[in-house]
Amino acid sequence: MGQEPGRGDLSYAVLGLLSFGRELSGYELKQWADNLRFFYAAPAMSLVYTELARLQSAGLVTSREVPGEGRRGARVYRLAPAGEAELRTWLSRPVPPATLRHPVALRLFFGHLADPDRLQAVLEEHRARCEELLAELDAVREGLRDDATFRYPALVAQWGQRYYGGEAAAAADIAALLPLDDPADLEDPAGPAWR
Amino acid sequence: MGQEPGRGDLSYAVLGLLSFGRELSGYELKQWADNLRFFYAAPAMSLVYTELARLQSAGLVTSREVPGEGRRGARVYRLAPAGEAELRTWLSRPVPPATLRHPVALRLFFGHLADPDRLQAVLEEHRARCEELLAELDAVREGLRDDATFRYPALVAQWGQRYYGGEAAAAADIAALLPLDDPADLEDPAGPAWR
Repeated sequence: MGQEPGRGDLSYAVLGLLSFGRELSGYELKQWADNLRFFYAAPAMSLVYTELARLQSAGLVTSREVPGEGRRGARVYRLAPAGEAELRTWLSRPVPPATLRHPVALRLFFGHLADPDRLQAVLEEHRARCEELLAELDAVREGLRDDATFRYPALVAQWGQRYYGGEAAAAADIAALLPLDDPADLEDPAGPAWR
Repeated sequence: MGQEPGRGDLSYAVLGLLSFGRELSGYELKQWADNLRFFYAAPAMSLVYTELARLQSAGLVTSREVPGEGRRGARVYRLAPAGEAELRTWLSRPVPPATLRHPVALRLFFGHLADPDRLQAVLEEHRARCEELLAELDAVREGLRDDATFRYPALVAQWGQRYYGGEAAAAADIAALLPLDDPADLEDPAGPAWR
């Protein structure tokens, strides 16, 4: 869930996904990249292939064709030593802050103008979406459980479980408080006409 | 903290900030808009003025000059009925999902390649930044406490307090777990040379 990574971040994401010691096809890489969606946008398949070609011509990854089920074999990619060195350099550089773009919070900010039922529905939709992503993350985390190679991705998955669990709980708690008393209600018990 | 709002969102943010029943100068609007930074990017001052001009020519806001301290008076803006109607329409439309772009989590995902001290420092920096934003939000929330007009912004501030408090706690908890045991360490008690 997030913005499309900039060209730089996509390069490092692809290099990073190849750093777990396995050769991966473009298709397998895309499946792995989809696991970034919980805290970044998952890149489109076409972008993954473009990036792989770019990284290969820069000498950061190598590839070879392996026999496949179709007429053509599948091409698999491996991290080259220069690619690993570039990854380590990236990991030592300053890290930009995390950013959030929260259209639900923006609408709640102006909740005094919203139809109360509509605002409840918007929060409920956000809660349901967070619960859904949480369930997907639970499955990802479960799948990584026993593999020490993926201990850091597993830790990121746990972080995501906290985040989405927290967001879902916050949305539910806020929805339970709505509608907030309108000051106009206090002056006029009948309330304003638009409610 | 976040992405620049799209043109559409900036329009609604400016209209919304004028919907609390007060005339505001461009400067005051910018100060209010800075309160959106906790869950959206705060727009640049120049963008706020461009947007005000656009909204005025569309008949969604009105303005008048009031006597000021300088040679020229200050221009203050007010929401027009057409602007309020447009805001209500926006609030009734579908809401895009919240998005996250988390460069810290992206680095942790590839933590098996990172220098352990560096990874600790990245998490500590994230924790400190979240604590800082939390302290700023505490002050915002405190300033809104008794004003029923701003009861929805106050609720958004509370949501932000949960979010930044949760992120700070998660970063601290994760940092305390690092470095995760390297599977190579288990085979070779001396550990790999690069650590």
